[in-house]
Amino acid sequence: MSLNRRRPYLAATPAFAAGTASPRTFLEDCIAQIETHEGDVQAFVHMNLDAARKAADASAARWKNGKPLSIYDGMPVGVKDIIETEDFPTEMGSPIYKNWESGRDAAVVKALRTAGTVIVGKTVTTEFASSHPNKTRNPHDLTRTPGGSSSGSAAGVGAGFISAGLGTQVVGSILRPAAFCGVFGYKPSLGGINRGGSHDFLSQSCTGTLAASLEDAWVLARDLAWRAGGDPGFPGISGPERLPPAKMPTSLIVLETPGWPIVDAMAKTALEKTCEHLSAKGIKILSRHTTPHVELVEKLLERSMPLTRLINAFESRWPYNVYHDKAAHLLSESAADRVVEAFELTLDDYRAALMERESIRATFNTLSGIADACITLSSSGAPPVGFETTGDPIFVVAGSMLGVPAVTLPVLESEGLPLGLQMLGFLNQDATLIAHASALLDQMTPK
Amino acid sequence: MSLNRRRPYLAATPAFAAGTASPRTFLEDCIAQIETHEGDVQAFVHMNLDAARKAADASAARWKNGKPLSIYDGMPVGVKDIIETEDFPTEMGSPIYKNWESGRDAAVVKALRTAGTVIVGKTVTTEFASSHPNKTRNPHDLTRTPGGSSSGSAAGVGAGFISAGLGTQVVGSILRPAAFCGVFGYKPSLGGINRGGSHDFLSQSCTGTLAASLEDAWVLARDLAWRAGGDPGFPGISGPERLPPAKMPTSLIVLETPGWPIVDAMAKTALEKTCEHLSAKGIKILSRHTTPHVELVEKLLERSMPLTRLINAFESRWPYNVYHDKAAHLLSESAADRVVEAFELTLDDYRAALMERESIRATFNTLSGIADACITLSSSGAPPVGFETTGDPIFVVAGSMLGVPAVTLPVLESEGLPLGLQMLGFLNQDATLIAHASALLDQMTPK
Repeated sequence: MSLNRRRPYLAATPAFAAGTASPRTFLEDCIAQIETHEGDVQAFVHMNLDAARKAADASAARWKNGKPLSIYDGMPVGVKDIIETEDFPTEMGSPIYKNWESGRDAAVVKALRTAGTVIVGKTVTTEFASSHPNKTRNPHDLTRTPGGSSSGSAAGVGAGFISAGLGTQVVGSILRPAAFCGVFGYKPSLGGINRGGSHDFLSQSCTGTLAASLEDAWVLARDLAWRAGGDPGFPGISGPERLPPAKMPTSLIVLETPGWPIVDAMAKTALEKTCEHLSAKGIKILSRHTTPHVELVEKLLERSMPLTRLINAFESRWPYNVYHDKAAHLLSESAADRVVEAFELTLDDYRAALMERESIRATFNTLSGIADACITLSSSGAPPVGFETTGDPIFVVAGSMLGVPAVTLPVLESEGLPLGLQMLGFLNQDATLIAHASALLDQMTPK
Repeated sequence: MSLNRRRPYLAATPAFAAGTASPRTFLEDCIAQIETHEGDVQAFVHMNLDAARKAADASAARWKNGKPLSIYDGMPVGVKDIIETEDFPTEMGSPIYKNWESGRDAAVVKALRTAGTVIVGKTVTTEFASSHPNKTRNPHDLTRTPGGSSSGSAAGVGAGFISAGLGTQVVGSILRPAAFCGVFGYKPSLGGINRGGSHDFLSQSCTGTLAASLEDAWVLARDLAWRAGGDPGFPGISGPERLPPAKMPTSLIVLETPGWPIVDAMAKTALEKTCEHLSAKGIKILSRHTTPHVELVEKLLERSMPLTRLINAFESRWPYNVYHDKAAHLLSESAADRVVEAFELTLDDYRAALMERESIRATFNTLSGIADACITLSSSGAPPVGFETTGDPIFVVAGSMLGVPAVTLPVLESEGLPLGLQMLGFLNQDATLIAHASALLDQMTPK
């Protein structure tokens, strides 16, 4: 399968308005891909192509009449199977919830419908959007992991089955699989998109998008926030309806992150070349080697993974105790371990971790005084061979712990496979980050 | 029915340890009340007395062996029917969810079980814990409203059916019914108790307790937070396992609140006498008449109700759109109106309201520099006659909008009926508020 199977949707819509193509013809291209490759890739848990065709025809009629429900009306999308849907089961990657039907749409799914999207199916998640892998394979190399937990959305977009998929991230569950599958991934600022009806409800969790283009990723995410709001009490993603105009950053911070010791040589070279290239374009590049304050922040970011693990474990007491008491024998070993860990911690341990996280977030925010954004890799190298794990999230956990907006751009390669360039912005400055990402994209050909 | 049907549980437990009474004999007293009065009061939606008796026997055995699961092991409790339970339906006060079973326990219900409590049944809520009334009547006068939305928990505790009930509050849904039914009500600081599995999920909503004594209200709430945590990302209620020792405040602020123009003469006199009494005990009483800064805060608090309504409406887009599309004809008029209102607002309107709320919260917090707590009434007078509404929440909405801890103490009367004295504390200073409330209780006989 080629590296360029992505099917950007927004870019195709002018033809719908002009009448030279339609959401139905667009969908049929996706379906052809699905019919050829889904047996290998296994991006979906449940799928309904008849319903998708009907929805695409309805969308086509709206475009024809000049009355699309949104600027992305008709976009073929997948919904991560941790998010409730009225017309498909929500299995959460666990045999405990095999064929479970919640009987309702999540907030974002309701929003997808009012925007006129074509919901192709539910995309594979790891068990409860945590670490235990599921069946999906990487469309760029079927012997490798697609990453997780938003495995099916990433692989489905990478394979050209859908233009975009919903994902959720609490450690690295959007950016890691997006990077491994060679697609765009966008995790908004904390609380950016309403999580009502999503079973990924931890304090660092965030709903976001995996998409065939940066434009698709932004337009979809921002519109979902506009329609469904952010999480209750959060301002939600704000910014323009269309892709924010590209804006060259003045200066960028290269973060080595705690993943630096395990980064492979090709990936390291790819990042270094990117920095040289951007520097040649006039962008000032700061790092721990040039700037003591960056070094201080990098030191604090070493706490990203231990703090995340502790906070996630405590916040998982419920509903993991429900899962455990319902059917302990159907839990993976890692999920069973999490129940034990959750109850070994106390509320006092948890409070201390929250305070430390808050303090690191405040310190990170001071970087906004010296640079426009941070860049780093999205992984230590190419997606690993095999399916025992979904890969190391060490490069992407910082963005989750910090709660800041983060994107991965499919512009690098390692071992001839996709490698993501990650950008981190500042809290609730999502549109600014996307504008800078757009400018970087203009400087670098997407792979 | 007399005013003193409350059955405090913690106060009874020394007899269990001594072997002169047991959770089972305690429960039988409650059941006798239920059998006599539930037909009139209608506090429960579903009830299981056989299961309750079994649970009480198991608790009795634990006390006998000196191994209670908690210091309130065996407490007969009711769970507001907006909170999921594995062994009862969760109907949310709506015919749309008649006999709906979620198949799982909410986080707090799991906690209740691990603490050894006796869950007597699900207590009546208004429709979706909002304004449309349900069947419950006030145990002190069956022609009057019990208040809402935690109607059944309030009436059940007031009638001596249970020692405590879980409630939730986003406007006045714990303090108002508690005050109307002559019981103690405690709404913790924002996020104080984990709301996983509760369908009252708005940004101001908070799970709390309605109880037969201040001790029962505190011990239960604080222990639920200890076992289940607060909401993800919040520190949860902190403080001692038992009732914090009484601590006389040095100074208190009397808030007239936006409810002052509609307060009835008897209620006004009751509050004035309380202030005189406390002043005579050496507590400095501040008010808008003595202190310009208090006047400023009172002015800001006039925004409590309009801000709350706007924020709640926007945050109700989902799942009210789900309810509406499922069965619009089964929604009350007020719920149907809320759907319309929710979609007339934009995300920008909502963001502006969040910012204003945040600013009022910050200003209110400055009062902590001049007083230990605020006091006011919990309602404008006795519970209204009739069942068309659950009464005006104008005196209690400020605590919800502010997110601060609030309690109502059943120490006043109007028209021979219960009138609550409300105390408001400062964010995450719950134990301090309870210590001051305990001191005030010592000065005033509970009615």
